[in-house]
Amino acid sequence: MSFTLGQIAEKIGAELAGDPDLEIKKLASIETAGPGELSYIASKKFKKYISTSKASALIVPPKLKTDGLNLILADDPNLSFAKAMRMFYASFPKVEPGVNPSAVIAESAQIGDECFIGPNAVIDSGAKIGAGTEIHAGVSIGSDVVIGDNCKLFQNVTVCYKTIIGNNVVIFPNAVIGSDGFGYARVAEGHLKIPQAGIVVIGDNTEIGAGTTIDRATLGETVIEKNVIIDNLVQIAHNCKVGEGSIICAQAGLAGSTIVGKNVILAGQVGVAGHLTIGDGAIIEAQSGIATDIPSGSVQFGSPSREAYQAHKITALLGRLPDYIQRLKKIEKYIDKMK
Amino acid sequence: MSFTLGQIAEKIGAELAGDPDLEIKKLASIETAGPGELSYIASKKFKKYISTSKASALIVPPKLKTDGLNLILADDPNLSFAKAMRMFYASFPKVEPGVNPSAVIAESAQIGDECFIGPNAVIDSGAKIGAGTEIHAGVSIGSDVVIGDNCKLFQNVTVCYKTIIGNNVVIFPNAVIGSDGFGYARVAEGHLKIPQAGIVVIGDNTEIGAGTTIDRATLGETVIEKNVIIDNLVQIAHNCKVGEGSIICAQAGLAGSTIVGKNVILAGQVGVAGHLTIGDGAIIEAQSGIATDIPSGSVQFGSPSREAYQAHKITALLGRLPDYIQRLKKIEKYIDKMK
Amino acid sequence: MSFTLGQIAEKIGAELAGDPDLEIKKLASIETAGPGELSYIASKKFKKYISTSKASALIVPPKLKTDGLNLILADDPNLSFAKAMRMFYASFPKVEPGVNPSAVIAESAQIGDECFIGPNAVIDSGAKIGAGTEIHAGVSIGSDVVIGDNCKLFQNVTVCYKTIIGNNVVIFPNAVIGSDGFGYARVAEGHLKIPQAGIVVIGDNTEIGAGTTIDRATLGETVIEKNVIIDNLVQIAHNCKVGEGSIICAQAGLAGSTIVGKNVILAGQVGVAGHLTIGDGAIIEAQSGIATDIPSGSVQFGSPSREAYQAHKITALLGRLPDYIQRLKKIEKYIDKMK
Repeated sequence: MSFTLGQIAEKIGAELAGDPDLEIKKLASIETAGPGELSYIASKKFKKYISTSKASALIVPPKLKTDGLNLILADDPNLSFAKAMRMFYASFPKVEPGVNPSAVIAESAQIGDECFIGPNAVIDSGAKIGAGTEIHAGVSIGSDVVIGDNCKLFQNVTVCYKTIIGNNVVIFPNAVIGSDGFGYARVAEGHLKIPQAGIVVIGDNTEIGAGTTIDRATLGETVIEKNVIIDNLVQIAHNCKVGEGSIICAQAGLAGSTIVGKNVILAGQVGVAGHLTIGDGAIIEAQSGIATDIPSGSVQFGSPSREAYQAHKITALLGRLPDYIQRLKKIEKYIDKMK
Repeated sequence: MSFTLGQIAEKIGAELAGDPDLEIKKLASIETAGPGELSYIASKKFKKYISTSKASALIVPPKLKTDGLNLILADDPNLSFAKAMRMFYASFPKVEPGVNPSAVIAESAQIGDECFIGPNAVIDSGAKIGAGTEIHAGVSIGSDVVIGDNCKLFQNVTVCYKTIIGNNVVIFPNAVIGSDGFGYARVAEGHLKIPQAGIVVIGDNTEIGAGTTIDRATLGETVIEKNVIIDNLVQIAHNCKVGEGSIICAQAGLAGSTIVGKNVILAGQVGVAGHLTIGDGAIIEAQSGIATDIPSGSVQFGSPSREAYQAHKITALLGRLPDYIQRLKKIEKYIDKMK
Repeated sequence: MSFTLGQIAEKIGAELAGDPDLEIKKLASIETAGPGELSYIASKKFKKYISTSKASALIVPPKLKTDGLNLILADDPNLSFAKAMRMFYASFPKVEPGVNPSAVIAESAQIGDECFIGPNAVIDSGAKIGAGTEIHAGVSIGSDVVIGDNCKLFQNVTVCYKTIIGNNVVIFPNAVIGSDGFGYARVAEGHLKIPQAGIVVIGDNTEIGAGTTIDRATLGETVIEKNVIIDNLVQIAHNCKVGEGSIICAQAGLAGSTIVGKNVILAGQVGVAGHLTIGDGAIIEAQSGIATDIPSGSVQFGSPSREAYQAHKITALLGRLPDYIQRLKKIEKYIDKMK
């Protein structure tokens, strides 16, 4: 597959500054791009490549416009490159609809039109699978699960009973949706299990990473709203709610009953304690530990977290702490002599 | 299913303060409870709901007794609500005993009475499965594994060869029990694998979360004693021992050969270094990193951890560090002028 | 199986100091070793056992040579014990080559000689499996995956389409190789998925732990070079490269496009931000958060990390911070009185 630079600029809705007929055969990262390839520069860190890249063309912000280069000028080069990626590549490999004979499907399960049910997949009684949905090899769908249209559940995913999944949801391999929440009451002889009688509800267009676990509610629902993206090995405990458009990066974890607002970003390895509220648009930096409610729009860092500007200031001061302590001791000596 | 408030109070062994004939149709969380529903208040944070909740009845501590409300008075409302949950809901959906024809069971494996062996489950040679145990879809049981009675191994769990599992153990989806410990010796050409010749032994009544990994010992046993509860995505390395009644929350990790005492709590994302001992009843707060032996009953926080009261004091002082540094500089200036 | 102490010393290439005809029936850890058993002392922490151990023989460093004991003297007792372990124990249980009839193998897949394809394994179209490779129960191999010779992929592993795996690679249960990278561009209605059109390439002799996830590149390759060992529940994001001989401990995570050099050690729960370079031989201590490039040979600790000697010094000073703040306040009072 190939496109001209002009075709690409037009399709992604950005301004061409160069040869419209230049043939682009491939897309490539800025470090490796060569002749016939289109790449992009989205941040200052990569600005130097404008003069050194061997790419035939680049998507760059308008301020990097340079005579003699074949460029596409875009306010958001990252987004424009994403659109170009979607011209060249499908998001997922195509699979032919059909039910593999090795799949085990309960009689009472309902499978929509044009579904793909892969080898050794298991679909339990009462489950409903929407049209065009793909259930890949080794996936286990529990009883009474409802899955919408055009979803993709990749290999060895487990979806436990009664989970409700919207349309266009993607779940990557070995993720577990709807396992029991971690609920027990202490008794003399150990721990009394609290039945986890609730469910998980996943909104439309959500993507859930490999190995991620989302637990069913004790009562009611654990909710992932629409347009949420969740990376690999994330833990979401019972009764949590993650608001529309939020991003949860790898290995982050939410304890029980915590409410994450809309368009929140939890960076990698963040931990959030239970029964808290994180306001809309908050950004929690990597490895932070959230122990209190966080207001909308706040940027947080540290364990326990503080406003990020303050946390970073303290981090910087800590680097000079040995010096400050020396200075304190020097003052003490001076004063001792004065006495 | 419904019960009267009187029936519930009697069954859970708590004092009724209200209409014994009030019909309770459902249980609900305090934030959402409405007419016909019973909820509970277990901590100060939720005390306000006593006047605002639309629940028909509440389980509360005796000191919240209020005239005109239908209440159950309980010293441990959390435990009492757990008991009520168990009146209304089963801990797990019932499955019919039987062996699904798609399961692959080695001839030499022994399956107890009334077992459920789900679709596409695999049971290898020499494995023994106790009476009433459920092996769900896609579970893989290695050779010579021994599993007790009335266990539930949910979908896509892997149990490696020779693992020994007690009675009434629950293992949630995609957990891995008995995979090789991370043992290598450094050699010029890379890493020489140390055979992991030991096993994992899991005690009675233990619950193990989704995606959790517990590694086999190099020699001898990795031991999880009885009544331990382990949350999702926890890592337990080779040769560790976790004592009776302990709680390990999500994404915590133990390095090799560490001994966790009885009734210890490791909160979420805690990490414990290798060859350490954590004393009975210790509590390790979330995200802490344990780098030394911890005495019984100690409460720890931080990475590396300290006694929690000290760690929290230091955290508070750090918030004022920029101010203290300013004050130090002011003193320096004053003294400079004096000289 | 048993060997004489003399046979063991000869085979592992270390000096015998004791009875060459002593029969060793088993190996054991130093804490539990008894009569007929060989153990080892590799660090100061275990030195005390030289006088208290009931083991019949010990591998110890030359400086611990003690008259009257049966010893093997070795400069690296850990390595020597590893070699002894390999005399007594196989690294993995043997499996008989053959294809289980329940496995689902696409017609266009190529299976090498003497392979083991376990129950309910799935091998998709165009995949190539090298000679002597074991694909255990429930493993799913995607389309066009290439796997070398003598690999072992344990139960319920998922390998996504087009992944390339070298020779002698071991992948432990429920790991996921080649799932989509976490790449999206922000748009008004949510997140625009960026197709993850690259692949994962795994070098020879690499071992990958249970539940670990390694994502495919956006473009090009996510690369794990040869002789790398990766523990359980590790996350490696798209476009990362991990250099030859490196060690990544449990629950560590790399964000996208980060380059880890050769012979690097990332300890447990370490997090590394994206687009960074960690130099050869660097050691990142447990739970550290790496936010900048790290030079070769550097030892780092903390979140965000510093050179470890400085980080540990600051940690120690923090323990005395309450005292230093008191001393600061005392000076202020003294000066106030002077004014």
